Parts: sequence; structure tokens; C-alpha cells
Amino acid sequence: MPTIKDIETAARRLNGTAVRTPLIESPLLNERLGGRLLVKAEPLQRTGSFKFRGAFNRLSLIEERDRVRGVVAYSSGNHAQGVAAAARLLGIQATIVMPDDAPAIKQANTRSLGAEIVPYRRFEESREEIGATIMARTGATLIKPYDDPGVIAGQGTVGLEIADQLAERGIVADAVVCCVGGGGLIAGISTALADRLPGVPVLAAEPLGFEDTLRSLEAGERLTNQAGAISFCDALLAPTPGEITFRINRERLAGGVAVSDGEVAAAMRAAFADLKLVVEPGGAAALAAVVAGHLPITDRTVVAVATGGNVDPDLFAEVLSGAR
Amino acid sequence: MPTIKDIETAARRLNGTAVRTPLIESPLLNERLGGRLLVKAEPLQRTGSFKFRGAFNRLSLIEERDRVRGVVAYSSGNHAQGVAAAARLLGIQATIVMPDDAPAIKQANTRSLGAEIVPYRRFEESREEIGATIMARTGATLIKPYDDPGVIAGQGTVGLEIADQLAERGIVADAVVCCVGGGGLIAGISTALADRLPGVPVLAAEPLGFEDTLRSLEAGERLTNQAGAISFCDALLAPTPGEITFRINRERLAGGVAVSDGEVAAAMRAAFADLKLVVEPGGAAALAAVVAGHLPITDRTVVAVATGGNVDPDLFAEVLSGAR
Repeated sequence: MPTIKDIETAARRLNGTAVRTPLIESPLLNERLGGRLLVKAEPLQRTGSFKFRGAFNRLSLIEERDRVRGVVAYSSGNHAQGVAAAARLLGIQATIVMPDDAPAIKQANTRSLGAEIVPYRRFEESREEIGATIMARTGATLIKPYDDPGVIAGQGTVGLEIADQLAERGIVADAVVCCVGGGGLIAGISTALADRLPGVPVLAAEPLGFEDTLRSLEAGERLTNQAGAISFCDALLAPTPGEITFRINRERLAGGVAVSDGEVAAAMRAAFADLKLVVEPGGAAALAAVVAGHLPITDRTVVAVATGGNVDPDLFAEVLSGAR
Repeated sequence: MPTIKDIETAARRLNGTAVRTPLIESPLLNERLGGRLLVKAEPLQRTGSFKFRGAFNRLSLIEERDRVRGVVAYSSGNHAQGVAAAARLLGIQATIVMPDDAPAIKQANTRSLGAEIVPYRRFEESREEIGATIMARTGATLIKPYDDPGVIAGQGTVGLEIADQLAERGIVADAVVCCVGGGGLIAGISTALADRLPGVPVLAAEPLGFEDTLRSLEAGERLTNQAGAISFCDALLAPTPGEITFRINRERLAGGVAVSDGEVAAAMRAAFADLKLVVEPGGAAALAAVVAGHLPITDRTVVAVATGGNVDPDLFAEVLSGAR
């Protein structure tokens, strides 16, 4: 399990390469919510999501002799772009196994970043098998999207920055809420905050029907989402908590809430109108937990992590029109 | 004319109240442009545009005994919100004379900020007469949108921040480009940069048909836009350069370009896709000058100021769809 030292080392590696994203707020939104909502704006991160942090940190850990064999990753989009961008910066060849229904913007950007994309049919083919074939042929290193200590440590730098930015502005936060797919980001953040802001609860936000982490936390063991659920939060559809991430999150998280697609769409509209920030569906889940009132912030100060902004214009226009 | 000292004083007044907006960029956008484009993200400013800076600084200059009589401003939206927010913070009553076709988001936010709105018909009534009547009755102080040294000094803090942020990151800029309505922002920025980054050209971007400042710079005197022009850059439709702003801009600006609505829409799409930033039409004019290639940045580093993000969702959706 990654330690605070690992996260601090990751922060030094990322310094000057990753963006120190701002913590933003809207006085009008705060007034409507009756409290203070600070949003960690990871859509402004390199590649448009926090995933660059974990990817760059993990790729930096690959031994020199292994770098020439390249890396391979499975991802519907944000991890793909993070790995592609990190690989390019470090001079490593990247191959991404990507579902053929991934948002067009994520596919196009991954390709623009110099990675090779191997598309697969999400419900018919096994990305693990495709990846294994590639690794057997090339000797490439697999970069998992969340269940990896190096990745988790990189994502944890979001937590360090939140703590630093609150301190710089003399703000005391009552809670931090973050969306959960496989749980890598919230594992890193909660590890960082256990050191920097001990006692401040870290809460999970998951899409309804994909609340595997919330159910697992209650059950005390890793459970899998039931088949048949759908959500437009494409970044948060991991079927089950990671082994490592769950071990961390079981210890560190103070609970959480599930949010509907409608609530997520409303949060995206609030981010548009009040924060002027483009947030993708999965990236808006934590914001939705607050804006929808699941986590009331009356007379409190809460930090919500907006994790990414890679959303196709058609879908964003639909959300703005209220059709979602 | 405001001096660098006035701008430094404004910066101290705004410290902790205005947002120090980030200077953002996109590696993929840079690659497409063949150079480095840094965007000063004023949509993330309090009230969603730079206008808060000038308004707060100007209102801070009102003597205590005059504050009880309130302030009055004419504005289609961003200056209105800036004045309303500043007035509320300083405990001053604000009345805004606003065209009845101003974007709904600007009207709603101005009202939410506690200001009284007096609507008028843009092409049939005189906002000056309406404002004069209010001032005669109440003794309120008129807060002009741009042609005022206190307002210009406040806007100039954008220039100080750009210089500081470039220095912090060790970046040398080859030019700074900024949109122009009445010219207050660019007058402030060019005054600040003449001190902090002497020799770096400051360039104007105006909507086609509303290039009164560019034509005036060429003619050496203040000219008025020809009747009949239209543009969706609602924030940049001032008919003629201000007296004070033109005196400054004539001395300080290195030229500029006019951009079409189509080029502005394309820049808004680039800000959405590559920067994850919501930018309103007028706010994207400087970005458009670069993205459309009017100001080539091949192997150069250029700062463009994105001045605001107060755009109605319907219009933004239209822009995303390519209908604009």
C-alpha cells in the first residue's frame, strides 16, 4: 500500500509537468447551497483529467531497460490519455486497448498523443486477453488504471494539493468528496489527507447501479455491480473495487452516496453556469452529491473533486438542453 | 491616466477578494498551432469575467459619505455583474441599466447579486438618460464600464498577474493579445506590461464590424463603428473607443486583428475541447485571433486573455453543434 512518502515522491516527480489545478468556487452557487463548495478542477489537468498524475508517476517507476519494450493499458479514455501523454514525455511507446464505443474525444486525443489504439468490442471481447497477447509479443509493461501502488501514489497528489491550497487560503474543510470508479484516486487522496488533514472525512460518490465500492464498504468485502445497470458516467463503470484500492478505502473512507445520471447532468450544468468549467459525466459525480443535496453543506465547507472534462460536444449540448 | 502605481494599489485591494486566475494551456492545442498558447482564464474570475476587478477597485475609491447614495451602471451584463458583486461586498446599493435583450444568465446573476435592474430597449431608449434620471433622484455615483482611471487600474491587475505567472514559470512571452470593447482591459494590461514586460507587444482583437479601436489606431483619432454591423460578441459592441482608453491604447498597443463570429465560435469550441473552459463569444475573441491563424504563433509563445464565460446554455449548445 502506498504511503504518504510515496505520494510526496510522486508530487516531486510531477512538479512542473502536471498542472497544479486550482480550487475554484462560485459565490452564487455557494449562496444557493447555503454553504461553501470548493471544487478541485482536474479538467484543467494535462490530458483533461487527473489520470495523468498516476500514469506519469507509474511510468517513471519503470526501469530503464524495460522502457524500450513499451507499455500497454486498458482504458475507455482518461487513463488512456494519461498513459499516452506520460509515455510520450518519457519516450516510451504506448499501446491502449480501448472499447470501440469510447467517447470520440478520448479516442482522438489518445491517438494525437502518439499512442497506438487497439479497439475491442466491450461486451464481446476480453480486453485482458487482447492485452496479454500484446504483452507476450512485446514484453510491454501493463499499466493498470487503479490497482497499482504507483498509480495510487500519483493520484494522491490531488490530496496533497487540496491540503496545501486550503492551508494557503486559511480555509478549514469539513469534508472532501470524490467520485469512485476503481477507487484509485480516492485511495490516494484519503491516504494523503489522513496525513495532512487527519479527521476530515473523505466520502465517495458513485453512479447509481455502479455503487460497488459503497456496497463493498458496507459488506466489508469486495462486491461486484449487478448486471444490467446503465449510466452515462463512462469513466466510473468499473465492475468491482480494486484489491489494493479496497484495502485502503475500507480503512480510510467515511462513507458516501450514489448519484443518478439526472443529478450528474444537473451538476454538469452548475459547473457550466457557475464555475465556467467543462466537466464530463463521471467527473461531476462528487459535485452532484453536493448539488443534489445528498451531502448537505449548510454552514459547512466541502471540497468536491471534479475529476475530468473529456466529454463529446454532442453529449454536452444535450446536457445543457436538459435532455439528460 | 492610471499609472503602474495605481494598478499595484488595485492589486492590493483585490488581493483575497478577486481570484488570481490561472494561465492555462493545452499541449494538444499547442501542437496543432505549432507554438505555445497560454490562456489567462478570466471566466474563472468572480462573476465569471474580469469586470469584477475594475468594478471593485472603482467602488473602493468612493468616499464613505457618498456610498450611502449607491451606484449606477449601464451594462449588457459583465460590468453589471462586476458592479453588483463589488457593491454587495462593500455594502453599497447598485442599480444597473441593462438592455432587455441581454443574455438571460447575465440578467439573472446580476439580480441574484442583489442589484436592482432597470431594463431598457437597446435601440429605442437612451441608457444615458435613464441613468441621469436615477442619479438626479438619488445622487448615486456613475460607474462607467471602461472610461474611468479607477476601472482601468483594476483591469490592469490582469496584466500584473500575467507578468508574475510567466516569471514564476520561467516563460518568456512574445506577445499578449486581448479583446477590445471600450478598451479598458487592454489599456490596463498594456500599462502594466509596459512596466513589467517592456517591449512585449500587446495586441487587440475585435469583432469584424466592431473594429472601432483598430480603425481609430490607424486613423489616429476616435472613430465610430458603422451602423448595421452585427456580431454575437455581446460584450464587445461598444460604438467607439473611450476617451481615456484611447489615449492610453494609442500610445501602448502594437496593432491587432478583427475576427469573424465563425472564428470566435471555433475558438469557443477549442476552449471547450482542449482547455475545458467555458468562454463566452466576446471572451473568445483573442483566442480566435490565434486559433484562426490571424496571429501565427509558430515557434512563439503568446498569451491570450479569455475575458469571460457568461454565455447562455442554448447559445453554447449551438456553438458546440457547429451551427454558429
